[in-house]
Amino acid sequence: MNWHKDTLEIPSHGKGMYAFTDAVNARIQAWGIREGMCFLYIQHTSASLCISESYDPSAQDDLEIFLDRLAPERQPWHRHTMEGPDDSPSHMRAILTDTDLTIPIDEGKLNLGIWQGIYLFEHRTRPHRRKVLIRCIQTA
Amino acid sequence: MNWHKDTLEIPSHGKGMYAFTDAVNARIQAWGIREGMCFLYIQHTSASLCISESYDPSAQDDLEIFLDRLAPERQPWHRHTMEGPDDSPSHMRAILTDTDLTIPIDEGKLNLGIWQGIYLFEHRTRPHRRKVLIRCIQTA
Amino acid sequence: MNWHKDTLEIPSHGKGMYAFTDAVNARIQAWGIREGMCFLYIQHTSASLCISESYDPSAQDDLEIFLDRLAPERQPWHRHTMEGPDDSPSHMRAILTDTDLTIPIDEGKLNLGIWQGIYLFEHRTRPHRRKVLIRCIQTA
Repeated sequence: MNWHKDTLEIPSHGKGMYAFTDAVNARIQAWGIREGMCFLYIQHTSASLCISESYDPSAQDDLEIFLDRLAPERQPWHRHTMEGPDDSPSHMRAILTDTDLTIPIDEGKLNLGIWQGIYLFEHRTRPHRRKVLIRCIQTA
Repeated sequence: MNWHKDTLEIPSHGKGMYAFTDAVNARIQAWGIREGMCFLYIQHTSASLCISESYDPSAQDDLEIFLDRLAPERQPWHRHTMEGPDDSPSHMRAILTDTDLTIPIDEGKLNLGIWQGIYLFEHRTRPHRRKVLIRCIQTA
Repeated sequence: MNWHKDTLEIPSHGKGMYAFTDAVNARIQAWGIREGMCFLYIQHTSASLCISESYDPSAQDDLEIFLDRLAPERQPWHRHTMEGPDDSPSHMRAILTDTDLTIPIDEGKLNLGIWQGIYLFEHRTRPHRRKVLIRCIQTA
């Protein structure tokens, strides 16, 4: 078994879902991995990872509105507001989604379902550069 | 370290939780794995994985109602309704639960807690055949 | 690749988040792991794992209140109330957060983001001793 590692930098410009499936597959291809496991880890608490439907953009729109409604800004009980009204809700949205993803690699790429895409879910209003650690075990 | 892989097909007939702990343990036993890690990955965005209490069926009933209430159908703001009113809520419920599970193997089976079971969480109304990729690292 | 395993016991005294980043890093250091992957798995369905902001305690307060509001106790539709009003909500809060965490190790410790901490999220009212399985792959 071989081991590969790198860090992806993903720019975000406000709340929403940013696809980066292609960036992961590009690394897998560059490393010559045919089969194995891919581990993704985001080093942030106000942005997160998620796998969802990549075909119809209206699915993503609905997911973004959904999280906005589930963890809305400017609630009277919020105490963690030091960095603004989007601060505390960003942590709430992050713990509901994923900090890490573990995905099988087959035939030289992530073995996703036909409609699946990998997303960075940005929960802050301002632009950021987000760091996602990528680690791969190569079995073939 | 040895490496094992397979695909489980799990039939569902409408919304709800479908236990498949036994199917995973059967593979682990067939591969002769005594110790290692098991990785499960569901290739869908309208069904998901989850680990929850397997003893009292009323716990599952409550979880199903809970997700129904958290992401209800037929909301006026839903735009992703192409495939029906259960389409967009299915993606919402999926991102709140799990796309992948990573579980230690010990003594020849998943080292679950005494009350834990592994479930496919079907979020669509119609029957489906769901694919779950199983990958195992064998350390003993 | 080397393989290490142990079980952490984390005491809890009522609902809330309990940091245990240091306990994990202590194991990694004791095993002499410089680089690899760390897998954490909680063997319970009424407590869970989560990674969140570790700097400002008010962030944790808000997260605890958030889950309390998202899955409140004493709802008329709850049926799984055998062990008390906190029983069913504890499973709901658990499936919204994490049963397992997968984190890269670099330079001899978990490669967390600067503000990230690892938490046991206790969802029951009474004190417990919670078991978290730790497994590590050592690549260097």
